Amino acid sequence: MPRSRSPRIITLLTDFGQHDHYVGAMKGVILSLAPEALVVDVSHEVASYSLAEARFMLAQSWPYFPEKTIHVVVVDPGVGTTRRAILVDAGRQLFLGPDNGVFSEIVRREDARARVVTNEKLFRNPVSSTFHGRDIFAPVAAHLAMGLAPSRVGPRVDNAWVDPLTAPTRTGKRTWSGEIVSIDKFGNVITSFRTAEFPQLAERPFVLKVGLAILGEVVKTYAAIPSGTVAVVLASHGHLEAAANQDSAARRLGVACGSPVELEIL
Amino acid sequence: MPRSRSPRIITLLTDFGQHDHYVGAMKGVILSLAPEALVVDVSHEVASYSLAEARFMLAQSWPYFPEKTIHVVVVDPGVGTTRRAILVDAGRQLFLGPDNGVFSEIVRREDARARVVTNEKLFRNPVSSTFHGRDIFAPVAAHLAMGLAPSRVGPRVDNAWVDPLTAPTRTGKRTWSGEIVSIDKFGNVITSFRTAEFPQLAERPFVLKVGLAILGEVVKTYAAIPSGTVAVVLASHGHLEAAANQDSAARRLGVACGSPVELEIL
Amino acid sequence: MPRSRSPRIITLLTDFGQHDHYVGAMKGVILSLAPEALVVDVSHEVASYSLAEARFMLAQSWPYFPEKTIHVVVVDPGVGTTRRAILVDAGRQLFLGPDNGVFSEIVRREDARARVVTNEKLFRNPVSSTFHGRDIFAPVAAHLAMGLAPSRVGPRVDNAWVDPLTAPTRTGKRTWSGEIVSIDKFGNVITSFRTAEFPQLAERPFVLKVGLAILGEVVKTYAAIPSGTVAVVLASHGHLEAAANQDSAARRLGVACGSPVELEIL
Repeated sequence: MPRSRSPRIITLLTDFGQHDHYVGAMKGVILSLAPEALVVDVSHEVASYSLAEARFMLAQSWPYFPEKTIHVVVVDPGVGTTRRAILVDAGRQLFLGPDNGVFSEIVRREDARARVVTNEKLFRNPVSSTFHGRDIFAPVAAHLAMGLAPSRVGPRVDNAWVDPLTAPTRTGKRTWSGEIVSIDKFGNVITSFRTAEFPQLAERPFVLKVGLAILGEVVKTYAAIPSGTVAVVLASHGHLEAAANQDSAARRLGVACGSPVELEIL
Repeated sequence: MPRSRSPRIITLLTDFGQHDHYVGAMKGVILSLAPEALVVDVSHEVASYSLAEARFMLAQSWPYFPEKTIHVVVVDPGVGTTRRAILVDAGRQLFLGPDNGVFSEIVRREDARARVVTNEKLFRNPVSSTFHGRDIFAPVAAHLAMGLAPSRVGPRVDNAWVDPLTAPTRTGKRTWSGEIVSIDKFGNVITSFRTAEFPQLAERPFVLKVGLAILGEVVKTYAAIPSGTVAVVLASHGHLEAAANQDSAARRLGVACGSPVELEIL
Repeated sequence: MPRSRSPRIITLLTDFGQHDHYVGAMKGVILSLAPEALVVDVSHEVASYSLAEARFMLAQSWPYFPEKTIHVVVVDPGVGTTRRAILVDAGRQLFLGPDNGVFSEIVRREDARARVVTNEKLFRNPVSSTFHGRDIFAPVAAHLAMGLAPSRVGPRVDNAWVDPLTAPTRTGKRTWSGEIVSIDKFGNVITSFRTAEFPQLAERPFVLKVGLAILGEVVKTYAAIPSGTVAVVLASHGHLEAAANQDSAARRLGVACGSPVELEIL
């Protein structure tokens, strides 16, 4: 079988920011080992240490990448401690990062197979205790991009860290409580209520309580939101979103990432 | 004729910011369809909804790219409404985005040929009503990068949206009014006065009124500006610019993007 | 000898920021001349005009890149003046930028060979007086990526600008004074004290005076720092670093880039 001519893709999702040298050093390590790899930045602006935001951004990006893409996610407050490094094979793609719950939704998939990353021959030597992105995750991703079999990375495990579902919890006959999982650059307020989990939203009226506001109007486009108001949008990511028209809903509502929200289906 | 080995370039210019997953999702869609495409970020930090700034940045970047580059510009407050998507072939390059005036200067070129993007077979399915960057512009750009003929995208139109020229207007025998089109990271104040349109600037003295200041000194380099002052620079982008030496002219002058400026040729 | 299939890497390290069109224009120029070059952003968020920060970031990234990488560093307050452009061949890599001291540590290497960049045939024409990144450094880097011999760029010189060492100075029998060279996105405070230059740190207790604080505790991982305190970390970059656990040490200590620090070995 001829080898595909397409370069192998490695995506990076971190909380490293774009000011520092961290991402540049990781890319240098990757390209030294895998010159043909294609490195794609998903985001380096995950809120520092926020596994919840990293999980949301990963869920919103990985399904759009081709098979065999290697997703490296480094949000890693426990770097250098006994926390393990993990490689998950799921959805015909690979996920590499610290075993701290950032891959909870991936690991929960039926087709997921997890391995602990233990093969030190793949690491840079010596491994620092503060920058595993450069010393472990970058070289392991590069070796995988060069065709290394996932089995060479380390043994299978069935106890990868899985956080409890961040899905909304039912609080009454017709009410659920959830939270704000992300606020985007436009100030759109993205909640943990997924429309796929609430099919009744398509048929029944509902209200979304965010901050002090009770939002009842549902629109399809941002442009349809009356100026000066906030409405609910069934947005591209599949979550209920509170938005304003060319304005920041987050500022209007006075809410932040992590704030509680409540859904009531009437 | 042998096929060129060079990858086809797709540039991205958006107001999506770099915090969110939007750009990453677009890149995933592009690379799934066109693995050999080379995606280049021009900027994702266009001020939210600012067509004027997007136009300026596009004008300052596209001429430096090679033939056949595909420029995707998504500043799109009208996403999901009846606004059309448009593809413009001009200057031996392609321009793809919402038909909202962002390509006004491109469409005005003599060699410009515009098409509405109507071929839904090229889109992701279903198309969301809030993220056409991912669902329409990314896959159409990818198909074009793979060699799809522009004619396959949709029919020719001759009524692409063209905003009135943002060129300065004459207000007197020797005076023109313009505006600030961009303030860069250094605080340099870039005006709508293009030196190519005012050849007399090379021969005659002039003053530039910005904020409360009247600037008369013209210098060739930032280093030539006396410390603590603001001067006029004939800068690399071809616009008159007010600048300070290792300091922010915008803060010194107390002006912002969109503020009026006045030119008087003495 | 067969030509390597690997694309030639050009890294960019600038203070241009990510809002403006500057980086996009440079990439257009590079890819027009060297379609197969791989452009890697190290950072564009160097503090405006800060040669010290650029030097630190360069030192933290270039050693991880493969042989023949071309590192373009543009932090250039003297653009358009008589300051020279320089190309340094060292460590089997190339370094290109203004001759203003940004390559001081590179030039000091025994294997360094510097050339002034004088061959105007390689430049864009005309060369602006404010944007040599686009008009000189981008096209020269592209020509080098296409295989141009460094000798074609200009003549050898032995007087490349070298700033005095920013290494700490001894202030007493057991005390040294240094400074803060960078504060990263997490608020980690990186000092000019390199552990390689102070081997006695491995054997003897010491204190680090930063701001009003006297830090004595040394830890290996961020997670080991007691909540609410700041400790010293022997971090991945080889410099003594003051850090907090999921918190900003810089804010806790009230210090900024350039602030003085003092080391006392007990």
